[in-house]
Amino acid sequence: MILILKSGATDDQIDHVIERVEALGLQAHLSRGTFRTILGIIGDESKIDAEAIRAIPGVASVVPVLPPYKLASREAHPDFSIVDVGGVKIGGGNLAMIAGPCSVEEEDRMYRIAEQVSAAGANIFRGGAFKPRTSPYAFQGLGEEGLKRLRDAGHAHGMPVVTEVTDPRLVEVVCKYADMLQIGARNMQNFALLNEVGACNHPVLLKRGMSATVNDLLMCAEYILSQGNANVVLCERGIKGFDTATRNLFDVSAVPLVHQLSHLPIIVDPSHATGKPELIPACAMAGIAAGADGVHIEVHDCPEVAKSDGPQALLPEQYAEVASQMKALAELLGKTISPTPEKTA
Amino acid sequence: MILILKSGATDDQIDHVIERVEALGLQAHLSRGTFRTILGIIGDESKIDAEAIRAIPGVASVVPVLPPYKLASREAHPDFSIVDVGGVKIGGGNLAMIAGPCSVEEEDRMYRIAEQVSAAGANIFRGGAFKPRTSPYAFQGLGEEGLKRLRDAGHAHGMPVVTEVTDPRLVEVVCKYADMLQIGARNMQNFALLNEVGACNHPVLLKRGMSATVNDLLMCAEYILSQGNANVVLCERGIKGFDTATRNLFDVSAVPLVHQLSHLPIIVDPSHATGKPELIPACAMAGIAAGADGVHIEVHDCPEVAKSDGPQALLPEQYAEVASQMKALAELLGKTISPTPEKTA
Amino acid sequence: MILILKSGATDDQIDHVIERVEALGLQAHLSRGTFRTILGIIGDESKIDAEAIRAIPGVASVVPVLPPYKLASREAHPDFSIVDVGGVKIGGGNLAMIAGPCSVEEEDRMYRIAEQVSAAGANIFRGGAFKPRTSPYAFQGLGEEGLKRLRDAGHAHGMPVVTEVTDPRLVEVVCKYADMLQIGARNMQNFALLNEVGACNHPVLLKRGMSATVNDLLMCAEYILSQGNANVVLCERGIKGFDTATRNLFDVSAVPLVHQLSHLPIIVDPSHATGKPELIPACAMAGIAAGADGVHIEVHDCPEVAKSDGPQALLPEQYAEVASQMKALAELLGKTISPTPEKTA
Amino acid sequence: MILILKSGATDDQIDHVIERVEALGLQAHLSRGTFRTILGIIGDESKIDAEAIRAIPGVASVVPVLPPYKLASREAHPDFSIVDVGGVKIGGGNLAMIAGPCSVEEEDRMYRIAEQVSAAGANIFRGGAFKPRTSPYAFQGLGEEGLKRLRDAGHAHGMPVVTEVTDPRLVEVVCKYADMLQIGARNMQNFALLNEVGACNHPVLLKRGMSATVNDLLMCAEYILSQGNANVVLCERGIKGFDTATRNLFDVSAVPLVHQLSHLPIIVDPSHATGKPELIPACAMAGIAAGADGVHIEVHDCPEVAKSDGPQALLPEQYAEVASQMKALAELLGKTISPTPEKTA
Repeated sequence: MILILKSGATDDQIDHVIERVEALGLQAHLSRGTFRTILGIIGDESKIDAEAIRAIPGVASVVPVLPPYKLASREAHPDFSIVDVGGVKIGGGNLAMIAGPCSVEEEDRMYRIAEQVSAAGANIFRGGAFKPRTSPYAFQGLGEEGLKRLRDAGHAHGMPVVTEVTDPRLVEVVCKYADMLQIGARNMQNFALLNEVGACNHPVLLKRGMSATVNDLLMCAEYILSQGNANVVLCERGIKGFDTATRNLFDVSAVPLVHQLSHLPIIVDPSHATGKPELIPACAMAGIAAGADGVHIEVHDCPEVAKSDGPQALLPEQYAEVASQMKALAELLGKTISPTPEKTA
Repeated sequence: MILILKSGATDDQIDHVIERVEALGLQAHLSRGTFRTILGIIGDESKIDAEAIRAIPGVASVVPVLPPYKLASREAHPDFSIVDVGGVKIGGGNLAMIAGPCSVEEEDRMYRIAEQVSAAGANIFRGGAFKPRTSPYAFQGLGEEGLKRLRDAGHAHGMPVVTEVTDPRLVEVVCKYADMLQIGARNMQNFALLNEVGACNHPVLLKRGMSATVNDLLMCAEYILSQGNANVVLCERGIKGFDTATRNLFDVSAVPLVHQLSHLPIIVDPSHATGKPELIPACAMAGIAAGADGVHIEVHDCPEVAKSDGPQALLPEQYAEVASQMKALAELLGKTISPTPEKTA
Repeated sequence: MILILKSGATDDQIDHVIERVEALGLQAHLSRGTFRTILGIIGDESKIDAEAIRAIPGVASVVPVLPPYKLASREAHPDFSIVDVGGVKIGGGNLAMIAGPCSVEEEDRMYRIAEQVSAAGANIFRGGAFKPRTSPYAFQGLGEEGLKRLRDAGHAHGMPVVTEVTDPRLVEVVCKYADMLQIGARNMQNFALLNEVGACNHPVLLKRGMSATVNDLLMCAEYILSQGNANVVLCERGIKGFDTATRNLFDVSAVPLVHQLSHLPIIVDPSHATGKPELIPACAMAGIAAGADGVHIEVHDCPEVAKSDGPQALLPEQYAEVASQMKALAELLGKTISPTPEKTA
Repeated sequence: MILILKSGATDDQIDHVIERVEALGLQAHLSRGTFRTILGIIGDESKIDAEAIRAIPGVASVVPVLPPYKLASREAHPDFSIVDVGGVKIGGGNLAMIAGPCSVEEEDRMYRIAEQVSAAGANIFRGGAFKPRTSPYAFQGLGEEGLKRLRDAGHAHGMPVVTEVTDPRLVEVVCKYADMLQIGARNMQNFALLNEVGACNHPVLLKRGMSATVNDLLMCAEYILSQGNANVVLCERGIKGFDTATRNLFDVSAVPLVHQLSHLPIIVDPSHATGKPELIPACAMAGIAAGADGVHIEVHDCPEVAKSDGPQALLPEQYAEVASQMKALAELLGKTISPTPEKTA
């Protein structure tokens, strides 16, 4: 950690800063420049609260040298982590192909879509039973009955299932049915929820918040990891941008950036990132080419009757087409679409 | 609602769209232009899910004519609402002056700061007992003991108190001590929490999320209002921007925009919006000049030992100075700093 | 074009709007809804200035039905355009591989880098002779001498050359040496410059401005096209974002979006988009996978002595590696790295 | 300047960095921390190109200690500058009230609007003769004839005039008629134009670019100052944001931030910042309350026939109302609306 002092910092202020730093068991290395005085802090930076230091009179700014996350960092864990979701591996060259409708809907529709996406190459089935909707008047999901339908349709076709949990009080029931818990973008910094999913041992799909930097995303993963749950998969799903031509702004560079900073797998979700079926295949391919550990795509067999997000759903036949292109690209890059347990066996 | 069809929409597609619209009990008014066909939907737009309509084949885009929120709109409630927080009025020309430390801290410090901000003109005391921190390793608040200290210090100086609630399971205990519940920016779209505070009758201070449009903010207010709790005060506290010179980007234009669209009061929080003590007074004044119904400022008597957000705290004497400027400005604009109940009596 | 009237629009206001529309030789189709009145405008929308219409009393908003650009649209030109740059084709399945240093530097270095990137597969050589620098104290480029060196080094290795023009007074001299003119991001809306390059017949590489939507970018292309120069290639080079982990925010979704809206080729520039050598290869691959018509990468053989943008340059051997990966990906997608004229012959 | 080295930086790399720094006549102060090595650079930082240093192998990041602008900084010039525009002072407690139509239009209309805004308290008259339009098909301005009309109408009412210059070739003719030259937001980083206006001695109104940080804005002012023209006034006119409810995002915090970092005056332009007449008065007041040195507002007596930007124009009577409120606020703050020369005499 480096402290840059204000140009007019007095000797008394400098002494006081050094005193505060040494009281924390660290050393301060003073360097008086031509225009400014600088203090290098030597010792275990993780012991210091950068914020408190920045509030000391005379301090202009604090430059951290280490990232604020530890368990999520590559330095702590140089190899890429592989997360196992009901037998399907994510990370380290193994790609997740997550597909399914936005919301869980009728039972027969769920079976039909599960069959279609599985045939196309999907290895994890998705669907929302508790929906975070921007309008209180919109469909809020089928609840526990939805969880049951999702699991039954997915497992019947050999696929583990992932579904969103939106409330710390629901973690237990969602764990009963789902193989993987999704934390949605709007809840990325819902710390009560992060702590709760950190305390269970289910794999977690943590979506990047719309105004979150990659550093913010890794700090939220750290919340889960610090509770003892190491099974975290990150997801880039578009951030807030100024061009309303797409629903969000797909930040594909987050993929190599996360791979540089962290050992955790990261997948992409071009459905939410673009909100436009005609852009999804190109962005799915871009994600794989950038090194993503999987792709999450919403699929519905009749988007105009979908309970939510119909306009951004791919039809099963459109999904099949992009899935086969992704498979070819994965092979070119030396990666594998993870087989489902049955297919493994 | 207006539907713009794709340039190549077929007659069959057009018929199908009209059929779908009429099945909802509405009328479709067809208008074939030179280049595009347009359908005006006549009837109660609130019955239709714009999303489902947009997914019908042949539809290029859907233009809503009415705002998606109802209870929060000026049309539903033409007069400005006045929210009463333990006897302090907010809205309709009555200004809230909310001040206090970021986190609740030692008992004597709480009393001291409460005394100082009250003397300077504050009418509501603030402090966090459950802190949403970006790092799992940072101070997380004093919990119920903190709530008690906050209430005791505030009430001892005649001020009702506001504090953040971060978890739906904590709404009950927070209601026991606090006069107003704060929903923080990171939880603006935590719908489980919104529903829970909507179900109680405590006044709510709803902060704008960092990637939320004003429309998004009003939709979240609608969640609370739709549960029966009409005591909602909005807060502009800075949104995500590209210039890191300030912590967030203070969107002062949200104040007149909310006043145009909604009857709900809106205050500003220049502490979180700028993160820089030297910019806070100017932005507080800007907020009042733009018509804000109050100002929220963090105050600490020794920022370098603050448990959180020390670098952005004003000293009590700095607060006193800007408070007196705000009072003069309020008078010029024909507004009143709301008296506390004791002072009223 | 659709006009949505204000909720309280009077009959006199409605009559006045219709009168104004009809005076323009168009028809207004009135539709009185339950809550709002709507006017569909029938006729050639391009005759109307949406802005003037929006200022008529009683008009709440104007919804355009057609895009504001014409010559740049897919509707005007359904096939993808192919732009020829000194014998190298860009677009329609032909990929540009543009490489070279940020600034033109010493003569022998230019020859050396040209040789290296050409051997790696580059087909167009780049280098800046007139540099738009954010500091007036930074290196401003070698001027005409730089243009000469760039051309000589590029042509000696069979590659046409592209260089930036920053001033309308310099278009003539830059045309003397360069095979393609680059308009930089900061000058995307420098309309005097756009008109000047539109009046010559040289191919133009038009970079997206940092705050430009895709629609804004296409409007600037329209400026050039409307002057008679049809040889426009667009370039996504990162837009302004809130995460400072990368220099800009690489918007890869702009590639399929431009291909949907326009016939013009679009390439990507991961060097400026990310500003980080370690992220460039992944983003270059993402661009190709998303359908880009080429990739622009800055290469320098000793970045620490580069006159500009050294920290984001790839070394020649790094470029060779990503170029070979891009070639394999292009083949998978059924595309061709355009051969240079010599290699064609 | 501080160099943070990569965690694995070798001794050879460290030696090479020190060698490079010393070759520039500076000293490097080495500090080996527990996890990272840091180099403090002592000497005149302005001699070093941070970019080149960052490209040296082993360097992870470069932290500048001083701002990159010099002439524009408060350190170089501790008192606030006062710029004189044809006898009207801007800065140091003197407020500019700039008003007039977006484009110069008919002669009698120009006289009429000039008379109205002058009566309301405006002290500088504005109007565009060379218009930067996003569409090549929109009205491009009246050229030299427009300059003449603007000057005649303004001067006839005792007001100096400001108008935009968009092309370095036009600086001479614009100087012939205008008392102040405006550089528009789209041309903020048109360095050829900045150099040209820097070489003349006319006062310059430099508008902040839509994706420009405050630091970027001050660097562009530095361009003009470094050419010898010290008469620069900055203008906050809204930056790019994600909420399309307003045309741009009005960053009022830029006003106190510029006053902290620089001696240059800064005014606000709520017309372009919001694009909505109903929000302009509130934002104008916010600007003054935040300390702005003036306010720029577009006024037209019949917005629906305006040649450009009609929908955001205030009517003369609306301008008169907000002008009288701004005057009262200025008095409260101890500031003066600058008198025009005639009124001074």
